[in-house]
Amino acid sequence: MASVDPQKVYDVVVVGGGPAGLMASLCLTTYGFNILHIDERPHPTTAGRADGIQPRTIEVLRNIGGVSNAPVPGGPIAGLSPIAGGGVAKKMISKGVRVYEVAFWDPTADQKLARTSRAPSCPEFIDVVDNYTLLLHQGLIEEAFLDEIEARRNLLRDPIPTPRSGIFRPYTLRDCRTLPSSDLLSSTHPVECVIEHGDSKAKHTIRSRYLLGCDGAKSHVRRCISGGEEGDGEWKGLITMQGEATDIVWGVLDARVKTNFPDIKYKCLIHSKSEGSIMIIPREANLVRFYVQLQSTEGGQIVSITRDKATLDICIARAKKIFEPFELEFGYVDWFSVYQIGQRIASQYTLDHRIILGGDATHTHSPQAGQGMNISMLDMYSLAWKLNLVIKGLGKPEILLPSYEHERRGVAEELLKFDGAYSRLFSGRGPDAKHLPGGVDAEKFIEMFKQNAFFTSGCGAIYFANELNALPGAKLLDGRHRRAFNPPGVKLVAGQRMTPGHVTRVADGNNVRLQQEVKMNGAFRIHIFAGDLRWTRPALEAFAAFIDSPDSFFERHRVSPGVPSSIVDGPAAVMNHDDHAKHTHTFNPFFTFLTIVGTHWYEWEIADLPSPLRLYRSQVYGDALFDHRVAEADTNAPLHRKFGIDMQKGAIVVVRPDSYVGAIVDLSEDGWLGLNDYFAGFLNVAPMKAKM
Amino acid sequence: MASVDPQKVYDVVVVGGGPAGLMASLCLTTYGFNILHIDERPHPTTAGRADGIQPRTIEVLRNIGGVSNAPVPGGPIAGLSPIAGGGVAKKMISKGVRVYEVAFWDPTADQKLARTSRAPSCPEFIDVVDNYTLLLHQGLIEEAFLDEIEARRNLLRDPIPTPRSGIFRPYTLRDCRTLPSSDLLSSTHPVECVIEHGDSKAKHTIRSRYLLGCDGAKSHVRRCISGGEEGDGEWKGLITMQGEATDIVWGVLDARVKTNFPDIKYKCLIHSKSEGSIMIIPREANLVRFYVQLQSTEGGQIVSITRDKATLDICIARAKKIFEPFELEFGYVDWFSVYQIGQRIASQYTLDHRIILGGDATHTHSPQAGQGMNISMLDMYSLAWKLNLVIKGLGKPEILLPSYEHERRGVAEELLKFDGAYSRLFSGRGPDAKHLPGGVDAEKFIEMFKQNAFFTSGCGAIYFANELNALPGAKLLDGRHRRAFNPPGVKLVAGQRMTPGHVTRVADGNNVRLQQEVKMNGAFRIHIFAGDLRWTRPALEAFAAFIDSPDSFFERHRVSPGVPSSIVDGPAAVMNHDDHAKHTHTFNPFFTFLTIVGTHWYEWEIADLPSPLRLYRSQVYGDALFDHRVAEADTNAPLHRKFGIDMQKGAIVVVRPDSYVGAIVDLSEDGWLGLNDYFAGFLNVAPMKAKM
Repeated sequence: MASVDPQKVYDVVVVGGGPAGLMASLCLTTYGFNILHIDERPHPTTAGRADGIQPRTIEVLRNIGGVSNAPVPGGPIAGLSPIAGGGVAKKMISKGVRVYEVAFWDPTADQKLARTSRAPSCPEFIDVVDNYTLLLHQGLIEEAFLDEIEARRNLLRDPIPTPRSGIFRPYTLRDCRTLPSSDLLSSTHPVECVIEHGDSKAKHTIRSRYLLGCDGAKSHVRRCISGGEEGDGEWKGLITMQGEATDIVWGVLDARVKTNFPDIKYKCLIHSKSEGSIMIIPREANLVRFYVQLQSTEGGQIVSITRDKATLDICIARAKKIFEPFELEFGYVDWFSVYQIGQRIASQYTLDHRIILGGDATHTHSPQAGQGMNISMLDMYSLAWKLNLVIKGLGKPEILLPSYEHERRGVAEELLKFDGAYSRLFSGRGPDAKHLPGGVDAEKFIEMFKQNAFFTSGCGAIYFANELNALPGAKLLDGRHRRAFNPPGVKLVAGQRMTPGHVTRVADGNNVRLQQEVKMNGAFRIHIFAGDLRWTRPALEAFAAFIDSPDSFFERHRVSPGVPSSIVDGPAAVMNHDDHAKHTHTFNPFFTFLTIVGTHWYEWEIADLPSPLRLYRSQVYGDALFDHRVAEADTNAPLHRKFGIDMQKGAIVVVRPDSYVGAIVDLSEDGWLGLNDYFAGFLNVAPMKAKM
Repeated sequence: MASVDPQKVYDVVVVGGGPAGLMASLCLTTYGFNILHIDERPHPTTAGRADGIQPRTIEVLRNIGGVSNAPVPGGPIAGLSPIAGGGVAKKMISKGVRVYEVAFWDPTADQKLARTSRAPSCPEFIDVVDNYTLLLHQGLIEEAFLDEIEARRNLLRDPIPTPRSGIFRPYTLRDCRTLPSSDLLSSTHPVECVIEHGDSKAKHTIRSRYLLGCDGAKSHVRRCISGGEEGDGEWKGLITMQGEATDIVWGVLDARVKTNFPDIKYKCLIHSKSEGSIMIIPREANLVRFYVQLQSTEGGQIVSITRDKATLDICIARAKKIFEPFELEFGYVDWFSVYQIGQRIASQYTLDHRIILGGDATHTHSPQAGQGMNISMLDMYSLAWKLNLVIKGLGKPEILLPSYEHERRGVAEELLKFDGAYSRLFSGRGPDAKHLPGGVDAEKFIEMFKQNAFFTSGCGAIYFANELNALPGAKLLDGRHRRAFNPPGVKLVAGQRMTPGHVTRVADGNNVRLQQEVKMNGAFRIHIFAGDLRWTRPALEAFAAFIDSPDSFFERHRVSPGVPSSIVDGPAAVMNHDDHAKHTHTFNPFFTFLTIVGTHWYEWEIADLPSPLRLYRSQVYGDALFDHRVAEADTNAPLHRKFGIDMQKGAIVVVRPDSYVGAIVDLSEDGWLGLNDYFAGFLNVAPMKAKM
């Protein structure tokens, strides 16, 4: 396969084979696109680098799931998803270690170093299933992506031949630009790029619909579109990197150690009295990640060790010093690097919504908060479903594409604000990066750590009002049906992830996680919380009739028959043995319905539900499973209670393909007409010829 | 590898490559033995056969775990177990489907067929993590075993070359016998067998320490040792198969169907008015397993269809008839078979404790209760750890080997009793297998089903008083320290599995399942429930001093240095970064200590615990995690509460290598002296030269 050459035309070119580029490739492959994915490194990462996966990222990876290429006895099953257990999340979890608790060590009145506080990685108030940070080296993370991309490429309808997992290496981007629309190809594939093989120097000119720059802090893509001279794109081009560097230098290494430090298997934030700070993180294979502040004291003055002088030996010596009085003996070292603390963000993520940047190409900061890789991956996760809608002709590009930067820049800015304060404080500096007279203010630091747990878990990455998030401030909320949005008492919030809950899948009686029932497949998930059927049955029937009427969002926003929303699901996730039954509903792959009934599921049948809801057989649920977050142990419908949904009224919760809540409306005519307006805000009306 | 020939001498010969034989091979390989494993089939199972894995079996498979052969950066880590995530349980779970609920369908006054009742597969009162039945065809189950055996063979110190996963096929056992002790080899390897290649007819004569007959209902091994003519071992040899067959014939098939029957994804027990009964079970790949009673009505009389006339077509026709008024259309059929209901048990499992039978070779019954494969696998799971102790010279063969039949026959007899009544009732027959005048007594049947849930989940497989189970009736309980056994209030019971509970592993703050912390490695797990340290510290210190004293069971029962208890753990499961610390404790691989402290783990340090308990760093736990089975939500130590352990007194719970509770004693001198007596009952006293 090494001899495969790139072709001339692709849907999307992805530049960069790190976590952001891999997430882009995995998602876009899932949506059925042919990707040209290049990386200038000859091989994937083998050690070190980013190593922390946060709870929300695990949740996302679980939602991406895993496909199985195993042959099915009796041949493929129409309408049955090839999504199987396992997948990227489980592969990573099986190889990594978990951090549930963080310990803070500081000098005290009578001890050189003592544990002064503890904090959970992910405090109880954050409602997330995997309530820990998962640690493993970046190579293992990349490997899980590469395996899954390979498995999904096998499901593409018309795959373009590629090397394994789709990555051409070593290939460098030499140029890229968006051409003016002059012919048929440039109307659909206006992006032109030139890539060069690292060894043979053979050049290829490629055309694509979009090009994604996931090529890191020194992004070639950014320089190409930004202009300016090589290496100076940060300050002279159209896109500038805003923010600042400090003189604070840290070393980072992965090593095996012997020590009598009791918390060596915890994430620890350690401040010595005058020798600087260390953060340690436990890692796979008995390794320990050390972040070591590189400073020394010369003549009573604290002096930073400059980047060029920071060797492994110095780093180890500093670590031993900071660990005193504990013994610390270094063995095998798996990886070593040095970095300088600074925070920068790109002034723009894109100039034309065709060549789009993400990940480290748009934001850089210190690694200690364990956020960079997570936010970079989620940048691409967030962009991919929007591209899917746009390329297939269903989404309005003028709304969806700008929403990428709107939503993700907000998160990156929040991160930079936190990281700037946190990394300086951890280094014993003030907001101006000047040395604090008393060294590290432990109390303030611990306070800051705890206050930011919601954000650092990833669960606090909140999106604000726009066409996709029906929140006060969005135009939609001034519209005709405004009163139907965000019913009082409901605790789910548009622009935030849907929180977890266990329900019973009525079709087979299985206990399942509602959140994970529909895997990432490009569809909007319309959750009908039906409450108590004694009260809600008329509304439920009216809603069902509405869905099948020509004026519903479901009928209005369709693409050409045969264009799927993704490769992982048939037209509907119907676990169906009765497909010889007659019905008129034609599935729309971009919408799927989940009906959660508060009345105990022993008291009604799926067949009692109005069509089309009952046709989504595998997505009808009973709500009667214990949830320890619901104080009243004998609540009939714990998830309705947890989400604050009125049992007499019910509610409709729209979850976007990225598992963010998009809109919450009453289960009433005003509610579903409101949803019509919501979807009309960013989706095209049929008949629209799909652009694929 | 196909050209590998069997060698002359093995530790154990295992005959039969089904689930029982595979379990024997997996466990014995884990304990470090070289196995000759033969199967007369040229290939593993590819479809159908046994398909239900019960909750207790999943628990056991999880405890066996999975090893990783992946290279470790920086080389192997002394004392760090190669046990990794995944393993047999997870592989099966990812491929199977789950049954949480059972539905009962019967004729009613106004409907030909209606759902008359429901029951959970595994009711809430059964405290088990995987509270469902897992369904997948036997070939997938075998495959998971074969993969894991292969991975473990790579960890053997001196592996004898074998084909993949250790199974020689097609090989038939031609003869086997135990030789009188006449030379050195026969004193250690007294078993001789002759095996023959299925194609070449080449014969090999093999010597081994033990031979296990896992070769099914028509066991060659049984016939060899039992004597009698071919095929008549059931009634004429030394070992007779006791019990009886009936004229009740059932067909069984795995198929894809289309139907409007609403519970097609449930386990359903369906009784028609006069056409017989059906059981359906959902299966992987959208298959449905059908058990179809084969009878017809001729001239008002119910007539059984005899086995020779039972074709697939008849089976399908009967199924459609019984399903009326529901539509049922058959598509792809994956597997089909016919069986006749009967229950038989071998009069003896062994004649000399050298050639030992298990699984279907010792007990056969109807498949509908979903028990056969489970109990067969657990037969071998149960035998293997006893063989491990005996072969390594630590266990007393005269106690341990007979305990296999004592414990497992009890379970098999319980099964046969249940199955006999259940399968007859389900077929509309009385205890005498005669037709009941009113057909199936639905109410009685449902009652019987529910009453037996504890047993059919596998969790109710209870062992009675013997040297291994310190229960009233055991000689030990008349001994000097009898008052220390089974402290009042404690809810764990010797001879039953240890029930689950979540705890915090103090070494790294991880939330873990206590039950699964020590994987199956041949060691006894000594759980010290330390209660409230304010009260128990003196007892804890005295116990720790006792352990390191020459008179403790820990010091008395040792094998030669260097003989491990298994391949999956070093001398102790110590997650240890401080092995340069000085200590005198020499680990004994056959015992491991788990200390569970009721005082909140923020209030003490591992270093505060007495040595040697603190040396088992990775097995020190805090008990502060919510458990919904403990009514009082704010209980300090929920697991102490759940297990009924007095916080002021603590307790010691010995769990056998098969995760059954062996003994429970006070945390007092009487208690640990009682444990000395307990272990002396079946273990040899050092210095004893290991027989390996």
